[in-house]
Amino acid sequence: MARWEPNARERLERAALELFTQHGYDATTVAQIADRAGLSKSTFFRHFSDKREVLFGGQDIIADRFAEAIAAAPAAATTADCLAAALGSVSVVFIPERRDLAPRRQAVIAATSELEERQLLKRAHLADAIDGALRARGTDDTTARLAAQLGVLAFSTAYTRWAASGSQRPYAALAREALHELQARAAVLGQPS
Amino acid sequence: MARWEPNARERLERAALELFTQHGYDATTVAQIADRAGLSKSTFFRHFSDKREVLFGGQDIIADRFAEAIAAAPAAATTADCLAAALGSVSVVFIPERRDLAPRRQAVIAATSELEERQLLKRAHLADAIDGALRARGTDDTTARLAAQLGVLAFSTAYTRWAASGSQRPYAALAREALHELQARAAVLGQPS
Repeated sequence: MARWEPNARERLERAALELFTQHGYDATTVAQIADRAGLSKSTFFRHFSDKREVLFGGQDIIADRFAEAIAAAPAAATTADCLAAALGSVSVVFIPERRDLAPRRQAVIAATSELEERQLLKRAHLADAIDGALRARGTDDTTARLAAQLGVLAFSTAYTRWAASGSQRPYAALAREALHELQARAAVLGQPS
Repeated sequence: MARWEPNARERLERAALELFTQHGYDATTVAQIADRAGLSKSTFFRHFSDKREVLFGGQDIIADRFAEAIAAAPAAATTADCLAAALGSVSVVFIPERRDLAPRRQAVIAATSELEERQLLKRAHLADAIDGALRARGTDDTTARLAAQLGVLAFSTAYTRWAASGSQRPYAALAREALHELQARAAVLGQPS
């Protein structure tokens, strides 16, 4: 039977980011990550399928939460309400205690083009989750596709600001703000700036 | 010196799509493509770096045209005008004589997840081209990012409709229509449907 390892997932994440930052992503092995975290390789593989998933595993959780939040929104909710619900649902992931990991994660991704590509694909997956959940509510195809792109853009804008934030503003507030900002800009694209 | 091969690029494209459709993308070699087109392998490599580029090489041309059209738009052009100019600039690529290639190309891409990923990355590259060209005109970051997503969405929506079109409507009209549709939907995301 597996031993109970308190916070194993987070210990592995912190260890991996330390090693990626010090030695580079390519040069770091799963064995080194487990060792640095004081855990076994088999514990690593109970939490992540490979070292890349240490960086991106959270995105699948976020896609699921987006879809669930949109499905759970009241029948009278507008598309904008659904996006706000989706973004609000992931604020539990972006808690203050984890904020210090975000800029390190971003730096590791930015340093390796394979990881940047993976990030783009994961974001396309987030868009698909929003798109599918909106269509399931009866939203037309064009609006669903558009809202999916706006939602992901609000999500990534808020994440970047949260990661960079000296002001320690909570993710939920940043996400709401980013979504409003994008909606306001969309309304005036055809107006002289 | 290289011999002059009339329409070599298009002959290679048609041969590749035939082979990809008949035998699958993975099972097709560059030698077979060149052979089917009645050209040499070295002619193939003067036009494409590998067989994947037969499917995606056009996207780099489109990214360049997008950027040039936005840079060339009058100083008074709104962001929506810039997007319209970008989309209009690629209608020379989507001419009636090439329309029969589009659904075959889409079917080949949809059958192979590696190719679908490549398409997503190429579209991200198109968005970057729009984003960069708008920023260079002084558009603020949020508007530029948003407009880039809208532009790529209008581009891909119009392309899908053009590829599927029984009505033979020209790409330029479909692109204008898709862009207007997206702008209209963006304006009412917060209104009850």
